[in-house]
Amino acid sequence: MLPLFLRPSRRAHHEMRSVEFAPAYLTHPDGSCLVKFGGTHVLCSAFLEERTAPFLRGSGSGWITAEYALMPGSTRPRADREVTRGRPSGRTQEIQRLIGRALRASVRLPDLGERQVKIDCDVIEADGGTRVASICGAYVAMAHCLKKAVVKGTLKTYPVHDSVAAISCGLVQGQVLLDLDYAEDSSAETDANFVFAGSGALVEVHAMGEKATFSKENFTEMMILAESATQAIKKLQDKALEET
Amino acid sequence: MLPLFLRPSRRAHHEMRSVEFAPAYLTHPDGSCLVKFGGTHVLCSAFLEERTAPFLRGSGSGWITAEYALMPGSTRPRADREVTRGRPSGRTQEIQRLIGRALRASVRLPDLGERQVKIDCDVIEADGGTRVASICGAYVAMAHCLKKAVVKGTLKTYPVHDSVAAISCGLVQGQVLLDLDYAEDSSAETDANFVFAGSGALVEVHAMGEKATFSKENFTEMMILAESATQAIKKLQDKALEET
Amino acid sequence: MLPLFLRPSRRAHHEMRSVEFAPAYLTHPDGSCLVKFGGTHVLCSAFLEERTAPFLRGSGSGWITAEYALMPGSTRPRADREVTRGRPSGRTQEIQRLIGRALRASVRLPDLGERQVKIDCDVIEADGGTRVASICGAYVAMAHCLKKAVVKGTLKTYPVHDSVAAISCGLVQGQVLLDLDYAEDSSAETDANFVFAGSGALVEVHAMGEKATFSKENFTEMMILAESATQAIKKLQDKALEET
Amino acid sequence: MLPLFLRPSRRAHHEMRSVEFAPAYLTHPDGSCLVKFGGTHVLCSAFLEERTAPFLRGSGSGWITAEYALMPGSTRPRADREVTRGRPSGRTQEIQRLIGRALRASVRLPDLGERQVKIDCDVIEADGGTRVASICGAYVAMAHCLKKAVVKGTLKTYPVHDSVAAISCGLVQGQVLLDLDYAEDSSAETDANFVFAGSGALVEVHAMGEKATFSKENFTEMMILAESATQAIKKLQDKALEET
Amino acid sequence: MLPLFLRPSRRAHHEMRSVEFAPAYLTHPDGSCLVKFGGTHVLCSAFLEERTAPFLRGSGSGWITAEYALMPGSTRPRADREVTRGRPSGRTQEIQRLIGRALRASVRLPDLGERQVKIDCDVIEADGGTRVASICGAYVAMAHCLKKAVVKGTLKTYPVHDSVAAISCGLVQGQVLLDLDYAEDSSAETDANFVFAGSGALVEVHAMGEKATFSKENFTEMMILAESATQAIKKLQDKALEET
Amino acid sequence: MLPLFLRPSRRAHHEMRSVEFAPAYLTHPDGSCLVKFGGTHVLCSAFLEERTAPFLRGSGSGWITAEYALMPGSTRPRADREVTRGRPSGRTQEIQRLIGRALRASVRLPDLGERQVKIDCDVIEADGGTRVASICGAYVAMAHCLKKAVVKGTLKTYPVHDSVAAISCGLVQGQVLLDLDYAEDSSAETDANFVFAGSGALVEVHAMGEKATFSKENFTEMMILAESATQAIKKLQDKALEET
Repeated sequence: MLPLFLRPSRRAHHEMRSVEFAPAYLTHPDGSCLVKFGGTHVLCSAFLEERTAPFLRGSGSGWITAEYALMPGSTRPRADREVTRGRPSGRTQEIQRLIGRALRASVRLPDLGERQVKIDCDVIEADGGTRVASICGAYVAMAHCLKKAVVKGTLKTYPVHDSVAAISCGLVQGQVLLDLDYAEDSSAETDANFVFAGSGALVEVHAMGEKATFSKENFTEMMILAESATQAIKKLQDKALEET
Repeated sequence: MLPLFLRPSRRAHHEMRSVEFAPAYLTHPDGSCLVKFGGTHVLCSAFLEERTAPFLRGSGSGWITAEYALMPGSTRPRADREVTRGRPSGRTQEIQRLIGRALRASVRLPDLGERQVKIDCDVIEADGGTRVASICGAYVAMAHCLKKAVVKGTLKTYPVHDSVAAISCGLVQGQVLLDLDYAEDSSAETDANFVFAGSGALVEVHAMGEKATFSKENFTEMMILAESATQAIKKLQDKALEET
Repeated sequence: MLPLFLRPSRRAHHEMRSVEFAPAYLTHPDGSCLVKFGGTHVLCSAFLEERTAPFLRGSGSGWITAEYALMPGSTRPRADREVTRGRPSGRTQEIQRLIGRALRASVRLPDLGERQVKIDCDVIEADGGTRVASICGAYVAMAHCLKKAVVKGTLKTYPVHDSVAAISCGLVQGQVLLDLDYAEDSSAETDANFVFAGSGALVEVHAMGEKATFSKENFTEMMILAESATQAIKKLQDKALEET
Repeated sequence: MLPLFLRPSRRAHHEMRSVEFAPAYLTHPDGSCLVKFGGTHVLCSAFLEERTAPFLRGSGSGWITAEYALMPGSTRPRADREVTRGRPSGRTQEIQRLIGRALRASVRLPDLGERQVKIDCDVIEADGGTRVASICGAYVAMAHCLKKAVVKGTLKTYPVHDSVAAISCGLVQGQVLLDLDYAEDSSAETDANFVFAGSGALVEVHAMGEKATFSKENFTEMMILAESATQAIKKLQDKALEET
Repeated sequence: MLPLFLRPSRRAHHEMRSVEFAPAYLTHPDGSCLVKFGGTHVLCSAFLEERTAPFLRGSGSGWITAEYALMPGSTRPRADREVTRGRPSGRTQEIQRLIGRALRASVRLPDLGERQVKIDCDVIEADGGTRVASICGAYVAMAHCLKKAVVKGTLKTYPVHDSVAAISCGLVQGQVLLDLDYAEDSSAETDANFVFAGSGALVEVHAMGEKATFSKENFTEMMILAESATQAIKKLQDKALEET
Repeated sequence: MLPLFLRPSRRAHHEMRSVEFAPAYLTHPDGSCLVKFGGTHVLCSAFLEERTAPFLRGSGSGWITAEYALMPGSTRPRADREVTRGRPSGRTQEIQRLIGRALRASVRLPDLGERQVKIDCDVIEADGGTRVASICGAYVAMAHCLKKAVVKGTLKTYPVHDSVAAISCGLVQGQVLLDLDYAEDSSAETDANFVFAGSGALVEVHAMGEKATFSKENFTEMMILAESATQAIKKLQDKALEET
């Protein structure tokens, strides 16, 4: 198929933005990572806390939970702080729950003992795809944190059994595009996020056609692009973790 | 593949529960419907309000929004009212946003003028699949409401261009099952919800493998079952709407 | 006195609407009842919980508490969900407290042990008198729940020592009317609710003359009508409980 | 009837506490009054605001609304501030609504024009009967405020057509008592509040038998005592208003 | 320097308003005091609670905490209750924290054992300087409360090692003034509050030049006036405490 | 005086940490700056909004407001997000109000017209002194934003009439120290923050002796150190602004 649509970013339809991981970016957390997907920058941190989630007390098992926020200066116009409204928006809660589920899929929770990993993803600069960048960076921060816990002897075995990476796709003017930036995302008819394990299995798929429905063929094409992109991201994650 | 897993409900793996729509169930709303998916009963209502969503004021276009709640007596143990905590849970917000997106995909919003359809889905009895039942019933309540608005002359043209229906699938002990009830849902490794338009196009896909990842083959099998089920539901919706 | 005022409902001034109780209406609660007072329909459920109210811990005694809500589709215009404002309105809290007090008056709380009955009254259709209908239905749901607890052996003795029923009265154009529907209630100068025990004793009286004050004679006339009506309702409650 | 029960206060069963009104107690409000019912002291203030309640905008009519609070040092143990929980309790809301209704019954609201009287009742010392003392003091503060508005020419006619006064009664060990203090109130089986207009008509009756039901005879006896007591209070109110 | 600015109050620039303390003003708290700084009246109460602040559990040490509010009728226009907004304003929180810090500076917290003094400062009439009047009155209420605890044997030693008193200063039209009333405060370029211990040491200094910056010389002049004024207030506090 | 106390940081008592400003750090805001005071890093951004604060509507004048937050990963243990509690803490509100006041002291607000500058200070790494670092960085972000507004023609004149800079001091073991880091701050008896204008005038002084009172001599010594340090910071601010 001829490239019907010229991306504002001049990227090919299957071309990802430059992806970078700066692990151990912060002083205080147990693990941390600054992740960049082009103009989207997310600061991810991980703390290993000595008590598990309330509903797991007494179970011997651990938990992984995540929080997400846009910093006010990360967007234009300014993103209002959610504390001003008194509660996280529906969008924020959806993203937080997604990040938590994705990370839990990669960890043997009983191997944590009654501990909890608290992940924070704070978007410093937003240019589309903040939730998938957050998952990719959060994985590095969490793995960094848990590796240190094994070295320190807090954990006996490294509980991470697989990696996770995520990427967005979309349909713009009927054409499937990989890794949409903000300008592309705003004009997309369909928006899809894929989370893949390093092993190639699916962790989560979420495709929404609010502005227009989409065909199974388009959906399959997006899934194939996403699988390949997450494999490339996995290599960058592994390399970043080697540096820590 | 041999049926490895006997469903608690004794249904075949591709067998839906009995689905029923009782349209015009309530006196006061503009449209309403009681929908039953086996032991899951949801009361759906629709009001057409003479002002659109705040962000659309002056645009000439309308909006469709949805709210969802479990009635306290719909589950065991009792479902706490969310007003007690002071805000809807993350799960409730996800479901409300999903119902709204699904319905908007079926309507030409500019044809509403600056009006808003407010949908409510209140679960009276819960036995799994409340969000997909809600979408199916909400479509009937909304269509009922909009048909009446055309008859009364409030709307010049009927703005619904397609129907929407939804169904859940899941993986239990490695086997793909259609329309999980609560007992099945609790033991599912993967949980997927599909929203299809009556035309056969996809509206929304959301598959989550929190307890275990899943293969593309499993995913495809779920999508095929769901497509067929939503076609069957569409017929029941059409029939219910004829009665109103 | 000649009938000076013709009721919109064409009922005689001392005539109650048709009252029906459908006990055991729901699957999951320990007790439940759908109650109808004409066009007012309330779904009542009761759960017996194995811990008492916080202020009674260690006292050996139980408690009965109630919550009440209008479903959004129960009125016209739509009743906004109270979770949206973040808290129950003053009206809702008054009604919840009234239902709880009325039911506690009928039960020997120490015979519950350290258990709590949680009652929910959700109005599905509203046409005036929702609070008195709620009390009548809640009594049936609670008695249903507690009878089952005796049968199961959770409770040694049936702790209900009397029944409770309630009815509204009002003054419209100077005339005392029984069981006002919405149209009548809106034009009433004085609004009164009476809760009587089955034994004929008073449980609660609340009469308000916001639009106009009222005489002791009017008040006495309302009380006499209410006493007689609650005796009639008691018979229907007893019959409904026999069916369970 | 022989005095079966000796009141802790040594008062006769039909004897009210010493009641005092100190009008114009505060500098800033338009009207104010410190009211004392024995050891219960309530500071009442009234402001006449130049805009009516939101639901009356454009109606030409005014409104009267009230707020109530226990000061933290008014009770033992300390009364927690409701701002700490983020919202007024059900009890506070009930009392606020009661005070507002009682005052509105004494005023021709259209004569206010599109203005609102905001009443505040802050309990400085609590020893039972704070809600009835609040109504009595609030009436004086409101009348003080509205008389000044007539003098200043803001209002053309004095809109108060009747006075209001309130008193509590109760049943303790089967005996009817007037004006219960805290020690008596804590042991009462039945608690009743009566609001009478100066003309002798009833404004509001609220009797609750949570600990025990009560007979119509007891109720009637309470109503007679209350009527007489409110007539006595009316004289003190009138005298206080003459002083302003 | 010539008096360039005639104070609306006709006071000399270094002249304090009449300051009065009425200790033991309330019945229920362990300690209390009504303090007046001219037209500013604050009701202060203190309760000694048998459990310390949560973060000190197990430390053997006590805590002192304070709450502050403007009563609605204390100002013109009316001061809205903060419970209506659901939370204390930033201003209220600043004042509460200031009062608590000031009082803690005067007490050996370990001598309280695991107990907490809860101070409440409720402004009945406001005419400028409510926060400094609150500190002065709160000290008397607290000392009153702790002296009684020694007499009753709850505390072995009197834990107050120094007194605290506070006063405001300001710059109006370039001139330093002591103890500003509301009219002066509203036109001040710089607003400063000083808390001194009875020993003459500083406890807290807070000077703000929002409308105009200020020189070190002005600042020093304000500090000197404040020191002298707090010594005078200390004598009144001591005398008030002797009366209790 | 001999150096009695060896600072953990090995700095001399009057020695500031290395201070750096990276202006124009972010893409989307109108002005921005990353400021570092040693291990304390704060990301400051400024947006110029086309409407002023609500209380200034119609006044022709502008406003400057600030918000502040600790990022969860900026401290150890993790700083909980304030949105989780539903509101900013008292400490956060104090800091936000302080930053706003300090910046407003440097700007002729009428020269903004009816516009508002919204400043955000988000602490990425915290090692003591976050509020003074925030003021210093916020000034650079604001000045950057307003200079651009002059260049673009939105503002006719540059409304900043003076610079502002802030620094903390403290007393540790009786010795006055400049610019405390977290380890020093935790053991300080007295904590003081000074805001100076570039012109040398005082903008705000806040000194608190919660753990111990302090003498006027100590206070004066702190003020002198602070004045000199803010002059040094002013030079770095000017240089950073030249680069933009």
